[in-house]
This record gives sequence, structure tokens and C-alpha cells, in this order.
Amino acid sequence: MPGTLTSTPLADGFRMPGEFDPHARTWLLWPQRPDVWRLGGKPAQRAWVDLASAIARFEPVTVGVNHDQFDNARAQLPDHVRVLEISNDDVWLRDSGPSFVVNQRGEVRLVDWRFNSHGQMSLATWEKDDKVARKIAEIEGVDRYRAPLVLEGGSVHVDGEGTVLTTEECLLNPNRNPDLSREEIERLLCEYLGASTVLWLGRGLDPDVTSGHIDDVAMFVRPGVVALAWSDDPGDWRHEVLADNLERLTHATDARGRRLEIHKIPLPAEVVVTEEEAAGVDTVEGSLALPAGFRQAATYVNCYLCNGGVVMPTFDDPKDHEARATLQRLFPEREVVPLPSREIILAGGNVHCVTQQQPRAERR
Amino acid sequence: MPGTLTSTPLADGFRMPGEFDPHARTWLLWPQRPDVWRLGGKPAQRAWVDLASAIARFEPVTVGVNHDQFDNARAQLPDHVRVLEISNDDVWLRDSGPSFVVNQRGEVRLVDWRFNSHGQMSLATWEKDDKVARKIAEIEGVDRYRAPLVLEGGSVHVDGEGTVLTTEECLLNPNRNPDLSREEIERLLCEYLGASTVLWLGRGLDPDVTSGHIDDVAMFVRPGVVALAWSDDPGDWRHEVLADNLERLTHATDARGRRLEIHKIPLPAEVVVTEEEAAGVDTVEGSLALPAGFRQAATYVNCYLCNGGVVMPTFDDPKDHEARATLQRLFPEREVVPLPSREIILAGGNVHCVTQQQPRAERR
Repeated sequence: MPGTLTSTPLADGFRMPGEFDPHARTWLLWPQRPDVWRLGGKPAQRAWVDLASAIARFEPVTVGVNHDQFDNARAQLPDHVRVLEISNDDVWLRDSGPSFVVNQRGEVRLVDWRFNSHGQMSLATWEKDDKVARKIAEIEGVDRYRAPLVLEGGSVHVDGEGTVLTTEECLLNPNRNPDLSREEIERLLCEYLGASTVLWLGRGLDPDVTSGHIDDVAMFVRPGVVALAWSDDPGDWRHEVLADNLERLTHATDARGRRLEIHKIPLPAEVVVTEEEAAGVDTVEGSLALPAGFRQAATYVNCYLCNGGVVMPTFDDPKDHEARATLQRLFPEREVVPLPSREIILAGGNVHCVTQQQPRAERR
Repeated sequence: MPGTLTSTPLADGFRMPGEFDPHARTWLLWPQRPDVWRLGGKPAQRAWVDLASAIARFEPVTVGVNHDQFDNARAQLPDHVRVLEISNDDVWLRDSGPSFVVNQRGEVRLVDWRFNSHGQMSLATWEKDDKVARKIAEIEGVDRYRAPLVLEGGSVHVDGEGTVLTTEECLLNPNRNPDLSREEIERLLCEYLGASTVLWLGRGLDPDVTSGHIDDVAMFVRPGVVALAWSDDPGDWRHEVLADNLERLTHATDARGRRLEIHKIPLPAEVVVTEEEAAGVDTVEGSLALPAGFRQAATYVNCYLCNGGVVMPTFDDPKDHEARATLQRLFPEREVVPLPSREIILAGGNVHCVTQQQPRAERR
């Protein structure tokens, strides 16, 4: 029977698999907040229908909704996408939701991190978001670890073989765990992700939104292989950030003692919020203001790997084509599905930020 | 993939099994409304913990809660009872929830009746309750029939072999389906319950609460065998109601052409709301007032059959013992579990009204 465990995944022989490993399903939440999503959420909701439909071509999809959006979400989403009531403050399930862990016997549990709305930068309240992981544990009937760490899933990537990739800008930020040292954070990451090595990159691409989540910057293609967002333009502020990260990755050694194979994925231009778009968003005290001119961190690395697929955000940008070709080359066995993502990135995240994979547990 | 079907269970070869048939699980909702449950719902919540724990001895239990009660319900209920978010207006899942139907191939679907808060007598609003069945369909991934009939599950009993037992007072009441004739209602009952014969009793025991639900009056012990609530006292207003029902049952023939074997279960005294109890309930316009002196329809027939068990309401009444002995005699293979039910019946219903069985589908 499911319950809350006081041990840790590492101690119990559990680990978080790579996103590239087989999934049982994908979880999403549904956009509605008029202080985050323009025009009462309608353009975003259409984007979510496209996103859910794209992922559902590869694996089952469950969408959590607030009560007052149940009918609307059910009516808009295709029948084969499951709609459940999961109260939430906003859609960033990668960050508010659980990290699933598995063991060699094919058992699944989940880690329920503390969530504080991205260092208290996104919304005035987040108590519904912080309960999402626990509710998913109940729905799935799996045991839960409640980790003593403020952490968003988007701030870590794992290779499933003991390596964690993260950024100093986010995980060492005083808006997350000000009382924990770098060493204590490393230890907790290893305990709760079932890992042994933490590779630290420096900064990310959105200091004012997530304090630099790793999932805008880099991703594991498979163990030993990393894709890194990249800009060659020395006049682009992002070039320096990424050059530093490239330097770190070049000298890194993963948990299995491997040097990493690194592939660059070109960055599109940042997405700049227009006057019209900004005017479509309610003003609410405590919610992150996104005025006209605000620059959001567009990046193809914020794609989502699902069973046989790569759902890749596109931006109507000249780099879309090259990035798609690169991803297809990196994932020759997967179908790369481009998803126009402007209505998602306008609120600061993208495909990876709003998805959460539940691994398919397999006995080894 | 689950969806909403426009055919009917009867047309598709589905039928509602008897409550005495094997269950996959029991569904409950969680009490909280201060305008229904005294002292902010706290005494009722303790009764629900006892109820859920009693049923969970026999089969899995899932409890649906509103968002704001998730933590509290989770903390009070034992770990092995699953707690899910299912928004609701009140707890009467027998009435607001689905009726599950099965076919001979072992497939399960559900019927989602229209719900109007017991003829609009209970609460001012019921839009959350009317969505409960649809949400359970999503959670379970089963197809749903949306029946064009206002009906509460507590107003019908089935023998699983083609017979429906109901009351004229409720089903022919203009507060339910004023535009439908008796024949049209019979046809819809048969279509959506997968039945062929409707046996009409007359009145029930709570004209001002449910307009006389059958589940206060009679129940199927098994096909061909009915238990009937009974009072020998001609000075008790209920005697006349029950004598008429006995007369009807005595002359009835079920769908298989059988005369019914009838067993009487003694009635306890009605439960009279005290001054103190009435003072513990909020006053809200539109909610049924339950003033001191209000007489609630206590009855042992409002028990619940689960796998190997009979959860039986008790009232600290001299008849408790005799009723328990009678139920044990009628169900020799089941364990009869008495459940003190005053905190449930105070709001007008009892164990049967707040439970809903999901059948265990078995290939025949």
C-alpha cells in the first residue's frame, strides 16, 4: 500500500532513469491563469491540445486540471488523453511535480521535492503546486519520498547511470536552499536521484524566471552524450554563458568515468513579448510581470523525449530547421515532431518544463 | 480509449450487477460542508475514517476529496485507503456517482445519471456532484453512458438478473423527471441498467430528504431474495408504508419469473436531531435545514455489501442487536460489521447512501 517513506531512493536501491528510457506515460497540467496566460488562456490551451496530441502519438498522456476547467479541458482534448482533477497553481509540472525512481525489480516510487515557485519568483502562492506530486502518488498507488530540498525537476538532468547535470546559478541560489552548502546539496541530489556524481554547469539562460534551469541549456541524449544549447555570436550575451558551460562539460567525467561526447544545438533568438501579448495578461500582485519587451529564453534543448519521439519546440525562427536536423541526427531512431511553442514560451517555459515522464518499470 | 457512448448498456450487452456480486473497489467522498455536517465536519470525518477502515478490511477503498481537504483527509485516513481529488458538493456518492455496468466479456463501463441534488431538496448547487461520475470514468479509464434521466443510485436496487426495484414516490416525483411517463422511466431504467423488469414499491421513509429512496426500504440479498425494513407497530407512521410495500413484493414476479422470498428487518426508532446537534450546523440559504426535532430515516437496510462483508449502520437502538442477527442469518458467508452511524444519519443518509461499488469484471 502506498505511503510516505523516510528512507531515501539511494538507500533503497532506487534511481531516476534517463528521460530517454522507456516511459509508462506522460503527465501534464492544463493552463488557465489569466495572470500568466494571455486572453484567458485560450491560445495556450490550443497549444496544450497540440502538445498532448503530439505526445499521445507515442505514449499515454494524463492531463491534470483544476475543477473549474474540467469540462473545458475534456472538451478540447482528444478522447484518448486522460483528464483528471489535480488542483494546481500553474502548469510547470516538470518543476512542481514528482521525479519518478525505479529499482531493478521493476518497482516504481516517486520523489516529492519541496516547491517554492522557482525561488518565489513566479506566483504569489504555490500550495496547490506543492501537493501535485503527492496526488500523483495516490493516483498511481506508488510510495513517495518527501525530499528535504527545494528543487524543480527542470533544474536537474540525469543519465540514469549515476550522473546528475545541474547549474550553480539555480541550485546554489539563496532563493532555493539558503541553509544548505554545495556539498549538502550534492549529497541530497545523490540520495534522492539515486546518483553518485554531480556535474555542475554555471549559468542558464533565464536568470529572472527560473534562475537558470539546466533544461534550457543542456540535456542527456544518452549516457555519455550531452546536447548543449549554443550560440557562436560573441555579441549574444548567451555566448559567454554557454562557452563556460562547454568548457566545464569538456573537462567533466561522469559517474562511470567517461568523458562526455558533446553536441551543439543552435539557439534561436530570444522570444520578445509584444505589446499586444503583454496586454492580454491580467495584472495580479505577486505574479511575475511579463511586460512588453521581456525576453524569454527560447531554446530547442527544452524538448521532450517520449517513447520513440522527440517533441521539439519551434519559434518560427531561422534556426528551427537546423536544430531539427541536429536533433534528428542525434536521435536517429526517434521521430522528431516540431511543435510551434510561442504560446508556451511567452510564460517563460517550454515543452520540457510542462511535461513529466513516468518511467516504465522493467525488471532487469 | 474511454469516451462517451451514445448507445445504451442494454443495447451493448451490459448490465448492472448486484451489490452482492464481487467488487473491484468501493468509492467514497469526504464530508466537510459546515452547512451539512456539524462542528465543521469533524465528527462526521471520524465516522468516515471508521467507515472507510471497515470497508477496507474487505476490498480496496478510494476516497474522493475537495482540494482544500486533501491534506486533512490524507492525514486522517489510513495509508491503505487511496485519497484522490474529486471535487464534490457533498458526500452522497451512491446518488451523485456512477452505476457501473459489466458485460460477459469482463468489460466495465459506467452510467452517468443526471443529478439534481435529490429533487433540488438538498443543496443550492450541485454542479460538482454532477461531474463526479465523469471524473471516475476518467480515473478508471472506462467508457461512460450519459443517461437522459435524473436518477440517484439510492433510488434503485438491481438483482443483476434483469430486475429493478424502486419506489413510485421517488421515481415518479415531479421533482425528478416531470416530463417522463411511468412507461418512459421504466424503459430508461431497463436500457441503462441492462434490465427487463421494474418492480414498483410505493413510498419510502424520508419524503422530505430523498423523496423515498428504495435503499431505506428494501434490498436484494441475492436474486429472488429481498430484505424489507419492517415495523409491527400500527402507531408508527412507517408501518403503513411498509405494509403496502410488503403487499406489493408478495405479489411481484421478478425478471426470471420468480416469486420473491421476503425477509423482514426491524426498524430502529427514527433519529431525532437534538438542539445541540442542530446548533453545530451552519445556516446557508438553499441548503436543506435540519432543525432540532427533525426526524431522520434510520434503517438497517441502508447497509453496504462488500466482498465478504456487510457494513451495517447502528443507532444505539434496542433493535440494533436483532437487526444484526437477522443480517448475519441472511448473509451466513459474510461478516456483519456494525458501524455506529449517528454522525452520518444526522445529515439524512447512511452507509449505503455514501458508498458506491465498482464491480470486479469477470469473464463468464
